[in-house]
Amino acid sequence: MTARHLLSVGDLGADGIEEVLRLTDSFVEVSSRAIPRVPALRGKTVVSLFFEDSTRTRLSFETAAKRLSADVMTFSVSSSSVNKGESLRDTVETIQAMGIDAVIVRHAGAGVPWQVARWVSGPSVINAGDGWHEHPTQALLDCYTIRKERQERGAPAPADGRPALDGLNIAIVGDIRHSRVARSDVLAFSALGAHVTLVAPPTLLPPSLAGWPVDVSHDLDAVLPKLDVVYVLRIQKERMTEALLPSLREYTSYYGLTRRRASMLPEGSLVMHPGPVNRGVEIAAEVADDSSSVITQQVANGVAVRMAVLYLLLGSGVELAAA
Amino acid sequence: MTARHLLSVGDLGADGIEEVLRLTDSFVEVSSRAIPRVPALRGKTVVSLFFEDSTRTRLSFETAAKRLSADVMTFSVSSSSVNKGESLRDTVETIQAMGIDAVIVRHAGAGVPWQVARWVSGPSVINAGDGWHEHPTQALLDCYTIRKERQERGAPAPADGRPALDGLNIAIVGDIRHSRVARSDVLAFSALGAHVTLVAPPTLLPPSLAGWPVDVSHDLDAVLPKLDVVYVLRIQKERMTEALLPSLREYTSYYGLTRRRASMLPEGSLVMHPGPVNRGVEIAAEVADDSSSVITQQVANGVAVRMAVLYLLLGSGVELAAA
Amino acid sequence: MTARHLLSVGDLGADGIEEVLRLTDSFVEVSSRAIPRVPALRGKTVVSLFFEDSTRTRLSFETAAKRLSADVMTFSVSSSSVNKGESLRDTVETIQAMGIDAVIVRHAGAGVPWQVARWVSGPSVINAGDGWHEHPTQALLDCYTIRKERQERGAPAPADGRPALDGLNIAIVGDIRHSRVARSDVLAFSALGAHVTLVAPPTLLPPSLAGWPVDVSHDLDAVLPKLDVVYVLRIQKERMTEALLPSLREYTSYYGLTRRRASMLPEGSLVMHPGPVNRGVEIAAEVADDSSSVITQQVANGVAVRMAVLYLLLGSGVELAAA
Repeated sequence: MTARHLLSVGDLGADGIEEVLRLTDSFVEVSSRAIPRVPALRGKTVVSLFFEDSTRTRLSFETAAKRLSADVMTFSVSSSSVNKGESLRDTVETIQAMGIDAVIVRHAGAGVPWQVARWVSGPSVINAGDGWHEHPTQALLDCYTIRKERQERGAPAPADGRPALDGLNIAIVGDIRHSRVARSDVLAFSALGAHVTLVAPPTLLPPSLAGWPVDVSHDLDAVLPKLDVVYVLRIQKERMTEALLPSLREYTSYYGLTRRRASMLPEGSLVMHPGPVNRGVEIAAEVADDSSSVITQQVANGVAVRMAVLYLLLGSGVELAAA
Repeated sequence: MTARHLLSVGDLGADGIEEVLRLTDSFVEVSSRAIPRVPALRGKTVVSLFFEDSTRTRLSFETAAKRLSADVMTFSVSSSSVNKGESLRDTVETIQAMGIDAVIVRHAGAGVPWQVARWVSGPSVINAGDGWHEHPTQALLDCYTIRKERQERGAPAPADGRPALDGLNIAIVGDIRHSRVARSDVLAFSALGAHVTLVAPPTLLPPSLAGWPVDVSHDLDAVLPKLDVVYVLRIQKERMTEALLPSLREYTSYYGLTRRRASMLPEGSLVMHPGPVNRGVEIAAEVADDSSSVITQQVANGVAVRMAVLYLLLGSGVELAAA
Repeated sequence: MTARHLLSVGDLGADGIEEVLRLTDSFVEVSSRAIPRVPALRGKTVVSLFFEDSTRTRLSFETAAKRLSADVMTFSVSSSSVNKGESLRDTVETIQAMGIDAVIVRHAGAGVPWQVARWVSGPSVINAGDGWHEHPTQALLDCYTIRKERQERGAPAPADGRPALDGLNIAIVGDIRHSRVARSDVLAFSALGAHVTLVAPPTLLPPSLAGWPVDVSHDLDAVLPKLDVVYVLRIQKERMTEALLPSLREYTSYYGLTRRRASMLPEGSLVMHPGPVNRGVEIAAEVADDSSSVITQQVANGVAVRMAVLYLLLGSGVELAAA
């Protein structure tokens, strides 16, 4: 990974993704220590620039940066002069002029992290979610979680020289249209050799899927019995007022991962969700809490994956050692 | 103190409270150093999860955690995805999955910290105020302040083997009904051997006092001359619109700690308030600023008490040493 | 600089300002290191108390404090109990009682930092902008930037014993009336020997300029050819609804630093702006991005200047050394 930024998971290619996954193993080990901290990014300053609310992603990145001994500053839209008309560009130029090393950007507008990357010459830019477009670190932690949880459950490793998710059948179920997670996951899962099926009502698919390396199905029951992983997306209740969904009850009856449907999954397959979960809507509470569900592991792995990304972007040449 | 959480001050018992008070002495000493910092919680991460605004309590806990070398992250409701419908449970599970060591919870709902404690298996949960229910670290800092300020003013120590506030007469004056401070203070003061009198108009007392180890009075003038400590609560101006108070002026005339009333206190007695003070309403400005008032010391001791609590919950086995 | 607070840049005098500028050189060097950090303020706690939004100033101060190894806590109005009626005074007394070492105050009310300074006996108070009144660290970074950028462009140094900006011609252009930057810059530039001209429409000048050591002009074209520095202020679009400005277009045509006007500046003169810039209103985009513009350097120098201020106020007696 010689790039300076992480904007799209597609930029990494299979090799780049695998490099992140290998390094993540080390940071999972660091995170399990009594003092989970290494001095790799001592003296570096990371700013989280969040124009959209997010618990999970911001805390995860900030925990990752602190475990690498970086300084972290939070810039969230409500406490910023963006309110008084400061343009995004000026904000970014300010951050650059202050000698910040990395900017973690979340924004409702697709493409904003690319725009930010064009404006800066110093800091690394990490896309922490842009509109409905991409969320590359989510895809990386999803890949890592699949690889690790399959190993721990005794699934056979891919053949020598084959990528980490070689030949796996993965379905992504739900609101694909408005999901940056789905876009990044499709790119990453296919780059690593998985076969991806999108399962959604037509109103929740993108207008065009030209160029997406996926199959599409509207019949979840038919797809489930052959899956290694079912990845359930969150349903935003707002979609109903937009007339994209008739009712939550109808959505659940066709696309919800109910207990009955979960029982159709093959032994050893994994249930995933990017969180936060609407229990009883897109996934039944018992299914979310079952041993086949790795939702909690996704969150836990998120910190280590983000440590790997920050280390690769900012810490090159620095030796990884205990604090 | 072998418990993993601090939810109610009542759970500590007299022994647990005394253990916190003894340890607080060490942290008062640490706080007086040129570099007020010990490495006791190095590598630990503490999240403050505040669903209600609070200057005093949040800054106090965060200062305490930093003086123990812990990492601190702030999660306040306005900058969180609770806004977009993330349930409290998902927030808490996220925090748990990330390997956070302690969660400091303030919430308008009574009982929320107990709920959070049931959901987590890793982190310690500290109640930083839940609705009108409890505020255990406030009660601990109040006990500590009484013990310390009496010592410094030359009051006799309790007889050997007797608890720290043995035989003291303490009145809590004001809006008992809506006060988590009052509930926690009653528990702690009585556990330590004090005799507590609640002084309030009937509308500001709880509907039932069954089981409270207290006396009740509506006549502040009659109570004052025998007190060692008068603890004045803040009056929320909203109580008038709720018809619980006729007017602030009438409240002050019956229950305000005016200069005249303060002069009825015995020599050496202490005036306390949890802050922030409404000068001229529940307490006269001159009384709040008089040498018998220990309001400022309460705030100062708050940091050391919270260091003691964090140390006992998270730092067991770690040797306490200078940084 | 033996003062405990930094409230007005006028309090420093020429000698105090020059002391800050000299020390800033050291911190520019620190900031250029691979690990831009010194232990000078280890164990000190700095609170930023911002009652007005600000990216630039808050991040700059917090970066400065962290590079000096201080702990930083952020108190912004939206996440504070000021909302529930906590008075400014109680907030400040809380901060003082907790043993905080410095309070960085930004407030919409002129004079608030002086008020805060009267209330505290422990912490240093730094004015980070009060209403339309003063913004002393902005003036210090502006002085530093002029001195440094002129040196780097080969301008002759002031004669021996003469102050840093001796004999320079500086115009401040725009909304002087509502600008704390203008007030502080006038004080600092004149203290250092510069000759200051204010250029603005009559509606954007203060009602009285009695005692200001400045000339006034309404003709920017006449002033530009003799300037060493043109300092362009931000136009707040709200001024139009207040009928102080007819239209942005008309403002630009009379007072905007257009490309044509910038070409009238002498070779080697500097273009400055406190940010954020309204490109195409008070300054043309090409001018803001031209090599004569030092807007980015102002931001970069801001961190080092604030390190110098914090060091002088809090670190006296501490030896400046590498981490």
